[in-house]
Amino acid sequence: MRSVTIDSVDFWYLRMPEVLDIGDGSQDLLLVRVAAGGDVGWGECEASPLTSIAALVTPMSHSACKPVIASVLGQRLDDVADIARIGVLVRANSLDLLQADHTFSGIDIALWDLLGKRLDAPVWQLLGIERPHPKRPYASQLFGDTPEETLQLGQATRAAGYTAAKFGWGPYGLGTVADDSAQVAAARVGLGPDADLLVDAGTVWIDDVERAAARLDGLRAANVTWLEEPFVSGALASYRALADRAGSVGLAGGEGSHDVWGARQMIDHAGVRYIQIDAGRIGGISTAAEVARYARARGVTYVNHTFTSHLALSASLQPFVGHADDEICEYPVAPKSLAWDVTVEHVERDSDGLVHVPERSGLGMTIDVEAARRYLVPVEIRVGGKVVYETPELRD
Amino acid sequence: MRSVTIDSVDFWYLRMPEVLDIGDGSQDLLLVRVAAGGDVGWGECEASPLTSIAALVTPMSHSACKPVIASVLGQRLDDVADIARIGVLVRANSLDLLQADHTFSGIDIALWDLLGKRLDAPVWQLLGIERPHPKRPYASQLFGDTPEETLQLGQATRAAGYTAAKFGWGPYGLGTVADDSAQVAAARVGLGPDADLLVDAGTVWIDDVERAAARLDGLRAANVTWLEEPFVSGALASYRALADRAGSVGLAGGEGSHDVWGARQMIDHAGVRYIQIDAGRIGGISTAAEVARYARARGVTYVNHTFTSHLALSASLQPFVGHADDEICEYPVAPKSLAWDVTVEHVERDSDGLVHVPERSGLGMTIDVEAARRYLVPVEIRVGGKVVYETPELRD
Repeated sequence: MRSVTIDSVDFWYLRMPEVLDIGDGSQDLLLVRVAAGGDVGWGECEASPLTSIAALVTPMSHSACKPVIASVLGQRLDDVADIARIGVLVRANSLDLLQADHTFSGIDIALWDLLGKRLDAPVWQLLGIERPHPKRPYASQLFGDTPEETLQLGQATRAAGYTAAKFGWGPYGLGTVADDSAQVAAARVGLGPDADLLVDAGTVWIDDVERAAARLDGLRAANVTWLEEPFVSGALASYRALADRAGSVGLAGGEGSHDVWGARQMIDHAGVRYIQIDAGRIGGISTAAEVARYARARGVTYVNHTFTSHLALSASLQPFVGHADDEICEYPVAPKSLAWDVTVEHVERDSDGLVHVPERSGLGMTIDVEAARRYLVPVEIRVGGKVVYETPELRD
Repeated sequence: MRSVTIDSVDFWYLRMPEVLDIGDGSQDLLLVRVAAGGDVGWGECEASPLTSIAALVTPMSHSACKPVIASVLGQRLDDVADIARIGVLVRANSLDLLQADHTFSGIDIALWDLLGKRLDAPVWQLLGIERPHPKRPYASQLFGDTPEETLQLGQATRAAGYTAAKFGWGPYGLGTVADDSAQVAAARVGLGPDADLLVDAGTVWIDDVERAAARLDGLRAANVTWLEEPFVSGALASYRALADRAGSVGLAGGEGSHDVWGARQMIDHAGVRYIQIDAGRIGGISTAAEVARYARARGVTYVNHTFTSHLALSASLQPFVGHADDEICEYPVAPKSLAWDVTVEHVERDSDGLVHVPERSGLGMTIDVEAARRYLVPVEIRVGGKVVYETPELRD
């Protein structure tokens, strides 16, 4: 096979006509397209598209603070080792550019998609996985404003056939301990006694162990499987102290990790039972797969973090579909239309309520270019009188 | 005293006419000005100005991914507790915006400067420090391309009266073990036997303990005080393993920390003897001071990381001038003209070769607006047809 190099890296900022001040991460996305030797791959960066566009094209500050694109364009892309090599380059050349990992995430995802298409293989196969296992999706959603609303959401989720559900953000953690317990109890009643109930505190207690610990009785009473992000990523000692007191409630965290090191620290020092990784933030599929291997060797369950499109969902499933024991996956149930419309195919549940990673080559997703154009936000950045970024034409 | 609120936050991208592909971080800077109730404070963000400008003004993605400016404008600024409160707000409201800590760093510095001017007190006094101690500056510079060049640099540094010097980046770590030992030996010869010699590997070995360990004999032979950043920030296990083998050579690291958690992890789990913090990156003076307290309680020496202007140098000295035992400070000896010209005053060495934090109010630095204008790079960012950032007029 002839050798090819990366010809172009394009970013598009897509968003809903109105972005609401709620914890719903599906309201915008940064779509990434990489082309090499006639093939095209697609990826997606999670959150703050404008900032990642700036990190892609920013002028160099010094030798270890270059724009992300400088380490990608023109690079050889013939096999998976090339993707790893490009990742090492980006991290060295953009060492002092904090946003770089976030920005590279969508590019890494697109590189895997492209290589899969070129080699006519699904990404999971390129990752060395022989047989993908289905995942049991947990319905990921926000708490209602009141326990009554949460109860109804739980009932609706059960009616929709989910056997696991996560409630998070909204009022949880901001009111009294009794308020929070009422919310969790309502979720349990709505879901019924057998479903897995997960609770996401959205880092609300920052690093305050006692405020989190005060909620443990309520969580245990509702037989909650995990408490997610009681603290910010990196507050290792607080996680560790809470883990020692949490009993049947496992701690989950890691979505804030923006490199393999942050995730490893959560696994090594925070006492989490579940490590949650967003491939659109941690550096892409490459880094996510590295964390999945690290977690497996240490008996920590790997779970994807996904709150945007089914392109992101396919990318986030790839690193851990080879491992049957990592049984559940995050599955956004009420995304905004953007997150649904941007792909032609979707990761649908089968008759048993399980989801399967696509068998098609690459990530198995076709971008609906016509639909995506409806959400396109034009961006132009000028530095020193020169245009360093202008939204390119959105095409296949 | 009447209560005031923050009226404006302005960013200016300044850079040298030519930015070279070398490890010299003084080639550009992001100047920050905050105004509240008629007073003005100045700060500076280190590295990649365009990306931090984007993070300041980026449209909201969701409730935990807001532009940094949204958590600052209009906030009350009457005492130091207000600065802490604003920091908590930024970190919660921009939780999913990776660049936010870096962007807020310059704002936090400007808030301290402003409050110091308003209360007519130097920042260190506001930090609760009764008496500032002088620091012994180490001359921070790049290795020469050859050992001969490094030797000459060492001689020049000694002739300039420095009793401590750091050599870093350049060819170090990229060639053979013998090459690297020759460089370090040359630095020692140039400096003379009594000066403190520090070596900065600039994360070149990423996490490879053996490649780093192979250099230990050469470092010990030259009586090197510390080996800085053999690995990337966060590679805790590699740091820990090397620390156990390094003997008389202390490990130093932490400049890559972009929040208090990253720095705490280096202190708790990496076995570093020296924690190096860049106030222009970790979240400002507030977070730097928090790390300084944490390090002190654990017997780890705090050192500033500073490679830009004397505004940044003053900011970086404030958190640890109260502690005489943290004796040395980084002092850039060959900054580009931008880094020197941007302030009227400078942190000069006294007749004993020591440096003193300014006694004047705030950070004790006046911005040379005329000079700064010569380095100004105009930036314009348009999103959805609207200008979200346009370089404002640079004024006092």
